Amino acid sequence: MATTVEKPAITESISIHPPRRLLFGPGPSQVHPRVYRAMAQPVVGHLDAYFFEISGNVQRMLRQVFGTQNELTFVISATGSGGMETAISNFVQPGTKVVSFANGFFCDRMSEMARRQGSELVRFEKPWGEVFGDEEAAEFIRSQKPQVVMYVQAETSAGAFQRGDAICKAAHEVGALVIADCVTSLGAMPVEVDKTGIDVAYSCTQKGLSCPPGLSPITVSPRAAEWLKARETPNRSWYFDLKLIADYLTVSHRYHHTASATMFYALHEGLTLIEEEGLEDRWERHHKAHLEFVKGVEAMGLEMLVPAANRIWNLNTPKVPQGVDEAKVRATLLKEHGIEIAGGFGPLAGKIFRIGVMGPLATSDHVHGLLAAFGKALRGAGYGR
Amino acid sequence: MATTVEKPAITESISIHPPRRLLFGPGPSQVHPRVYRAMAQPVVGHLDAYFFEISGNVQRMLRQVFGTQNELTFVISATGSGGMETAISNFVQPGTKVVSFANGFFCDRMSEMARRQGSELVRFEKPWGEVFGDEEAAEFIRSQKPQVVMYVQAETSAGAFQRGDAICKAAHEVGALVIADCVTSLGAMPVEVDKTGIDVAYSCTQKGLSCPPGLSPITVSPRAAEWLKARETPNRSWYFDLKLIADYLTVSHRYHHTASATMFYALHEGLTLIEEEGLEDRWERHHKAHLEFVKGVEAMGLEMLVPAANRIWNLNTPKVPQGVDEAKVRATLLKEHGIEIAGGFGPLAGKIFRIGVMGPLATSDHVHGLLAAFGKALRGAGYGR
Repeated sequence: MATTVEKPAITESISIHPPRRLLFGPGPSQVHPRVYRAMAQPVVGHLDAYFFEISGNVQRMLRQVFGTQNELTFVISATGSGGMETAISNFVQPGTKVVSFANGFFCDRMSEMARRQGSELVRFEKPWGEVFGDEEAAEFIRSQKPQVVMYVQAETSAGAFQRGDAICKAAHEVGALVIADCVTSLGAMPVEVDKTGIDVAYSCTQKGLSCPPGLSPITVSPRAAEWLKARETPNRSWYFDLKLIADYLTVSHRYHHTASATMFYALHEGLTLIEEEGLEDRWERHHKAHLEFVKGVEAMGLEMLVPAANRIWNLNTPKVPQGVDEAKVRATLLKEHGIEIAGGFGPLAGKIFRIGVMGPLATSDHVHGLLAAFGKALRGAGYGR
Repeated sequence: MATTVEKPAITESISIHPPRRLLFGPGPSQVHPRVYRAMAQPVVGHLDAYFFEISGNVQRMLRQVFGTQNELTFVISATGSGGMETAISNFVQPGTKVVSFANGFFCDRMSEMARRQGSELVRFEKPWGEVFGDEEAAEFIRSQKPQVVMYVQAETSAGAFQRGDAICKAAHEVGALVIADCVTSLGAMPVEVDKTGIDVAYSCTQKGLSCPPGLSPITVSPRAAEWLKARETPNRSWYFDLKLIADYLTVSHRYHHTASATMFYALHEGLTLIEEEGLEDRWERHHKAHLEFVKGVEAMGLEMLVPAANRIWNLNTPKVPQGVDEAKVRATLLKEHGIEIAGGFGPLAGKIFRIGVMGPLATSDHVHGLLAAFGKALRGAGYGR
């Protein structure tokens, strides 16, 4: 048979030419070079034995970073907000009484999702940047007697870390499940799902795990899994139905959706990097880089929004000094140094910078480079005149 | 200040070593080398000007492959089934009367999602592999007077291509919106959204577009966009809320979720490859490769499940010859040739092979190589003895 269908004549050059950035924003954070190399490995099918080998390893390594023994620990094929919707749509039904600890933008997103599920929502509100004390949190839960309690462990909008021990203890006393947003903390600082008592925790790949965005790790306690098993009405969402996804990824390997081998390769590599470094060493590295950064900005005369005890290690929120045009600072950093940082928004618009120091950038060299550029940009925007 | 936080000492070698595969299944299909190179380009933020440049180009190029002028043409951050859920959750509400043309697995998935949205669902069923005639389809719609009509243009479970002109015409006569699943057809054969009259079409990246899985292109007609604008209750799904996603990707660029620059790079490259080849040339190449493959399997004495006029060009479904152990054929191909093909499932389990010839593999050389290996594996599994 004569060859009739030829390979198309196309060039070798690609269409993607992004500017070089140092990603010091709240995420996506700098991706480790090994993760890019992992993604260049050829795709296998979503039902291939090799895919399930990678997925199995990912599950094992995720248990480590989450600090959990939960069997149901795997990955949702969507970004972090898809993980949030998975957690909420599976455990919040029409009429479910939900208590939401609300001290930032992502708490509000959780509230909005719970509302859309038809829940009876009660919010305990605090200004962005503050956290809830053990006593007041427990008291609120005991008085409200909800079925589900939600909080954000590391609030990306404000830089505050919410401890969850008292929340979980009180929630379990009244028979409630606890959903915690660990989007920003996972991989960069202790999440401690089991020790804290969290029932459902989800995260993302593009912050503490040094991968591109695209997947959402999630973990579900045996208690929550039992609850889910007994749930009588199906989740309105088929795509985020944990029962179906768990069956595909952990039990029967029966097809649910076409998981992206490429994205799983990336996450596998990101988690392997953490394992090689050692989880506690990695946390320590982020903690030290955080302290170094804070020391540096305080030496410049800036104040941090969040008190030292409540700070997220990998996301710093210094206040914008009076008289400084924060948008100009960000524009200068981006234009002159290729450095991305973020500003505040909502009630914190114009009031804080949001500066992430994570993954490959959480080293003294990078922190010093950042501080030098930041100081220069601040002076250029009117600081210290 | 002394350097205290060192770069962690880790190796250079990556953890991902997939087996080499020629992906001749229904998808994921073989990824073009340029797409891998595009994904290795550094991530930028989801609100970076460069991200919106890439996303804008993707929208323009998607309009071409979809065959549409629809302004609302963009990308959902989930796999093809996430696109399906986006289409259905936005346009089907509790009580919505839905007609579902049901001739395969993915029609059933659409039905299931419509049921979960609380719709009043009416199904017109046919055996898998058959298609609906113009008259009977129109008649059914006219008698049922639904608000939404759903069909699958290219049924991956059976290999049948459903023409939609008569369906769309009748649906519009009764005031219904039409949702069409174009997961398998997009990029490999004409989809013709506008010419057909489809209101909402969605697809995936890992079949006719030669990219890894992870995103779902979607397009929405002005008519459907008007309907959506007037919708009074919010979509129960926040993640798949088209209004919010459209605002982020096309209007205000206000943050919704953290879209994956990496996955957008991949899709941008896949679409650029199509543009360089020429869309009609690409269709023609897939059509010719399909005809060559069919000629080859028929020469071996195999029959195709679907009549010639209704076949999907990039997914072939030859019947398993009597006495042949189809699982053995697939295992041999995988083990001895690194070739992945798929079997049938549901009512077609054990009865058909599902063999995709797409993207870089839709050339005579690859088709001949596939046919030779397939013939050998068939003989090894008892064929022609």
